[in-house]
Amino acid sequence: MNKEDLFLKIINETIEDNSYLGDDCAYIKDSGLLISHDTLYEDIHFSFDYFTPEALAKKAVLVNISDILSSGGVPLYITISLSGNLDENFIKNFYSGINEIIKKYNIKLIGGDLTGGKKTVVSIAIIGKTTNPSSRKNAKKDYNLYLAGIHGSSAKGLELLQKGIKDFENEFIKAHIEPKLYPEISNALMNNTKDIYAMTDTSDGLFNALDKIKKESGVGFNIQYDKILKRVNDKNLVLFGGEDFGLLIAVSKQDSKILDNLNVPKIGVVTDTKKIIVDNVEIVEDKSFNHF
Amino acid sequence: MNKEDLFLKIINETIEDNSYLGDDCAYIKDSGLLISHDTLYEDIHFSFDYFTPEALAKKAVLVNISDILSSGGVPLYITISLSGNLDENFIKNFYSGINEIIKKYNIKLIGGDLTGGKKTVVSIAIIGKTTNPSSRKNAKKDYNLYLAGIHGSSAKGLELLQKGIKDFENEFIKAHIEPKLYPEISNALMNNTKDIYAMTDTSDGLFNALDKIKKESGVGFNIQYDKILKRVNDKNLVLFGGEDFGLLIAVSKQDSKILDNLNVPKIGVVTDTKKIIVDNVEIVEDKSFNHF
Repeated sequence: MNKEDLFLKIINETIEDNSYLGDDCAYIKDSGLLISHDTLYEDIHFSFDYFTPEALAKKAVLVNISDILSSGGVPLYITISLSGNLDENFIKNFYSGINEIIKKYNIKLIGGDLTGGKKTVVSIAIIGKTTNPSSRKNAKKDYNLYLAGIHGSSAKGLELLQKGIKDFENEFIKAHIEPKLYPEISNALMNNTKDIYAMTDTSDGLFNALDKIKKESGVGFNIQYDKILKRVNDKNLVLFGGEDFGLLIAVSKQDSKILDNLNVPKIGVVTDTKKIIVDNVEIVEDKSFNHF
Repeated sequence: MNKEDLFLKIINETIEDNSYLGDDCAYIKDSGLLISHDTLYEDIHFSFDYFTPEALAKKAVLVNISDILSSGGVPLYITISLSGNLDENFIKNFYSGINEIIKKYNIKLIGGDLTGGKKTVVSIAIIGKTTNPSSRKNAKKDYNLYLAGIHGSSAKGLELLQKGIKDFENEFIKAHIEPKLYPEISNALMNNTKDIYAMTDTSDGLFNALDKIKKESGVGFNIQYDKILKRVNDKNLVLFGGEDFGLLIAVSKQDSKILDNLNVPKIGVVTDTKKIIVDNVEIVEDKSFNHF
């Protein structure tokens, strides 16, 4: 059992009502709110060898925005808890990075907390809104499978950074430091789908995202590897490399034109085999990205 | 400038729209939601020398519930990010503690995240609802000042724990490990006040709470020390000791009966002097509780 499954098992055993858990965000139906909460921990998720306080702040917010987008929502508010042994300059630069991203996405910072701590930890809760949420449970046989994002790039960037290469104009390093998000896709789905749809981000790798929808929807996939956008020649990085924050989407045939119009590549179809098949080969092993 | 003021100064300088910041919770008017986010960091806010995983979990949620209560709201949902080098047993015990408190307060766990990390960090975001929020800005001259909670107890408990005393039936140690909250007071104010009211919890000490309302409302206080509930004979602990999670409340004369009916002690009155006067002596020095 992998760590994520073990964690979900423990939650299921200890928490009596866990009906809200299991998607990128919790969805609160009566108010249409989406809520998510993600943490970046120094030397687990990032290193100050190559993250400035500003870059860290930007990535920490982007990671959380991605959860709202992958739930088919619009981000509205964030709260930030920043811990560490931090000086005034660090805090200033960090919050400048925050300001840049929240301006871009029209998000309000509504709570901030600062505490001491040996290692730097950034914990962000994000609240968004949707009129039409996705769910990992919504994929159905014969739905089309789409994938936004250039996969393997972020993991390749991390490899380069860990080798000491600090060329911040390098496309792979850029992909790792400040991942590209796809709000236009999320918005188009929220506003235009006629049928229920499944979506998740590829934060823990493409295989991991496929596996989540597979398990929650009880489906399988037939995928054409050459349809996946990539700039690395390494299947492991493409399938298992994490932090590309692309969007994996399963939509009905009639809703497929929404994604076709946005030029999102169709990479395959949803099947009832409960298997993840890439170019006629079943992918079974979970080698998904584990931070460091 | 103390650390909290410095942090607020930096936020003001870096974040363009900070209209939501400055109270125990952010209040989102159009939906009536209250949101807060607090973090407990190992060896800063707690030590495993005397916190079990269950006790840590319970305290982490209580600290966040306190923020909702002190804003005049009802807690509804939490998300939890737990980081650390944790085994299965730890996670199980931790979430058993979570389950106990959320059942008691009828809260739903809607998001959970687990990451690695050298030191254990618990970061909880909480969402509540109110029809009538308090604000630190709402105190007015001639309002009455009330204080719920037995002050100095938690700090005394921490002193004992740090001396190696592990009697978990000791009232001071109990006050530190599992602080008592006052939902009945918060509810009564939300449902019954006719005028605006100011409230904050005393998480960072009584003086600190007084100072926050003083600054945000531009008022002062005349306080009778003997009206403050306490079981320690140490003015420093009573005024500056933290983590009692009592409620400091300023209400209008006509609303005072709400608190009189609940037997909340009236400890003084709001003045326009911009001074915190306790038994005719101005308290100026901020010796407020700094964790460890």
